[in-house]
Amino acid sequence: MVVEQGVSTDFGHTTLPYCSFVGTGEKRPKVGVGVGTDVLDLTAAAARVVPERAALFADGTLDALLGAGRAAWGEVRDALLAWVTGPAAARYLVPASDVELVLPFTVADYVDFYASEHHATNVGRIFRPDGEALSPAWKHLPIGYHGRAGTVVVSGTPVRRPSGQRRAGEGVSFGPTAKLDVEAEIGFVVGTPSVLGQPVSVEDVEQHVFGLCVVNDWSARDVQAFEYVPLGPFLGKSFATSVSPWIVTLAALDEARTDPPTQHPRPMDYLQADAPWTLDLELTIRIGDTVVSRPPFATTYWTPAQMLAHLTINGASLRTGDLFASGTVSGPDADQVGSLLELHHDTTYLDDGDTVTISATARLADGRQIELGDVVGTVHPATA
Amino acid sequence: MVVEQGVSTDFGHTTLPYCSFVGTGEKRPKVGVGVGTDVLDLTAAAARVVPERAALFADGTLDALLGAGRAAWGEVRDALLAWVTGPAAARYLVPASDVELVLPFTVADYVDFYASEHHATNVGRIFRPDGEALSPAWKHLPIGYHGRAGTVVVSGTPVRRPSGQRRAGEGVSFGPTAKLDVEAEIGFVVGTPSVLGQPVSVEDVEQHVFGLCVVNDWSARDVQAFEYVPLGPFLGKSFATSVSPWIVTLAALDEARTDPPTQHPRPMDYLQADAPWTLDLELTIRIGDTVVSRPPFATTYWTPAQMLAHLTINGASLRTGDLFASGTVSGPDADQVGSLLELHHDTTYLDDGDTVTISATARLADGRQIELGDVVGTVHPATA
Repeated sequence: MVVEQGVSTDFGHTTLPYCSFVGTGEKRPKVGVGVGTDVLDLTAAAARVVPERAALFADGTLDALLGAGRAAWGEVRDALLAWVTGPAAARYLVPASDVELVLPFTVADYVDFYASEHHATNVGRIFRPDGEALSPAWKHLPIGYHGRAGTVVVSGTPVRRPSGQRRAGEGVSFGPTAKLDVEAEIGFVVGTPSVLGQPVSVEDVEQHVFGLCVVNDWSARDVQAFEYVPLGPFLGKSFATSVSPWIVTLAALDEARTDPPTQHPRPMDYLQADAPWTLDLELTIRIGDTVVSRPPFATTYWTPAQMLAHLTINGASLRTGDLFASGTVSGPDADQVGSLLELHHDTTYLDDGDTVTISATARLADGRQIELGDVVGTVHPATA
Repeated sequence: MVVEQGVSTDFGHTTLPYCSFVGTGEKRPKVGVGVGTDVLDLTAAAARVVPERAALFADGTLDALLGAGRAAWGEVRDALLAWVTGPAAARYLVPASDVELVLPFTVADYVDFYASEHHATNVGRIFRPDGEALSPAWKHLPIGYHGRAGTVVVSGTPVRRPSGQRRAGEGVSFGPTAKLDVEAEIGFVVGTPSVLGQPVSVEDVEQHVFGLCVVNDWSARDVQAFEYVPLGPFLGKSFATSVSPWIVTLAALDEARTDPPTQHPRPMDYLQADAPWTLDLELTIRIGDTVVSRPPFATTYWTPAQMLAHLTINGASLRTGDLFASGTVSGPDADQVGSLLELHHDTTYLDDGDTVTISATARLADGRQIELGDVVGTVHPATA
């Protein structure tokens, strides 16, 4: 498969996002770290940077690092911070534009939430103009569902327009979706697993969540609308979910923490944190070179810690590589929506050949910004 | 975790179901084959039985065999059929009751269908007494959704009663589910993967599906009812899905094929097979020693091949280890329902301490029967 890579982001020397990459002329992936616009070959450098942890990078994916837990994550980050600006690092750097970035970890379960009040309200008004926009449970718990982990693909993977059954007047027709949409989301990658039967507390989110990525949860709205009662989205979303190739650690985004929205009614105790936080991330959706929206993640009603606590409150266990996404991020304004459904009120969707790029910028307390990785995808025509 | 194993099934000498087991005093799992009431240690015997395929059994799981494809499945089965009754086999046999049976393969995605018309009608009548029992799409396509792969557990694993939010009069309460239910299902295990963007035809089901198991998709009905609009089941089912430890190959069940129900209206072309078939399996649900129901799988409206073709019609790819289940199997009669919801009309559910056993028997064309593996689970109290 041809993977179309975007231009390299300049990550500076402190963000230190992780990736998995295949070097020119090489076959096996290696673990990389973004340094400026280069990739540091950590699989090769680990014996010098973090000799006692070098085995974590041997297989070229982030899987072992994810499973090693928070103490190891901190050790590796501290060692890298001290080392990447030194003279020894240079020989392990290659321009990011020269390598192929691949899916950086083995995706275990993929859960998608529906955590933006603005999005849920917009969608409810479009589909149920005479009813309540939000379901009765919406303000009591973060609504979520399981998506297809096996079709999570890395940024740059072409997205084939899916075919399926849709309503056609009083009947049903089959063919390529006429309503191919994007959903701009933030995804959280679980590192440390949990034990079956033991819920994870909101306070323990940093023990379990390694970092985040940018997500485009492609959706075929006509397929989805026909199939989704009563068991939820299935083929309307399972054909592809694109993720950015860089995993930015929670540790790198410490200073991007901000207050979450006020929640009313007060959520139940298991959803209450002593110091609730969300992240000040601005997403940008581009179709071609045109910016169509700038969704603000901090307006999302439910926080990442609440999503995690809810996901496990029934005793469901976490595995290394679980990915949970926020659901479509939409702000209160018309130019802050996270899907074309909302932008065009269910009238205009993606054409074949459209390239969609979703970017995200973290705004730190001191005014600096961190660019996260882009997630890019071009729509290819349906198979005849 | 203590795994409570049931008694051994007598599999005879031709069913040859696969398992993964840990021998007494051993730590690493091995691949086993059910022969009579014994387990054949195939990881040890493979060098003698199928020397050129011995590497498939080295890691003690079925993963490599699943991924090796149909030609390899046939080779191994043929070699075993010719060898297990010979004198050399005896030294590799241990009583199944002496070993621990573990989850036999790495579960990739778990998809649950809703393919029984009797079940969907029963549920529709209970929850929507004044409306249409079936949704408009139900007879056009097999409704399905993704479940949680990470909480698929082997038979014998205790099932902790989950807690969650439920409706309480006009408000909402939190606590252990009061409506813990079973769902008796048949699960299909995918071996050969498929390519992203390329649907799998109904005719190719045997190229991709290795075999089947018995499934209990435990459900917390009160949690499910509060959360499930509009995105479907989530915490109400994600706490545990139990599977039988034996994977019976499609090849072993060739003679159990039977005609599926008549479908009206005629399904779309991609759901049409030249020679449609389903399997003549009778399930039995026991609570303690009491048989409460005997669901007939052959009454399930959508066939396994149709489920697979639908699952991939949007281009979603299959991975080795994907598990898709039929959804609750219910026949037309009151003593053939696959859930307590239907049996007791939403009035009586499982108590702590209840042990649920779901068995299945395949009825062959010549009148013989094959017992599949049981799936057993005991309800443990909610964590305080």
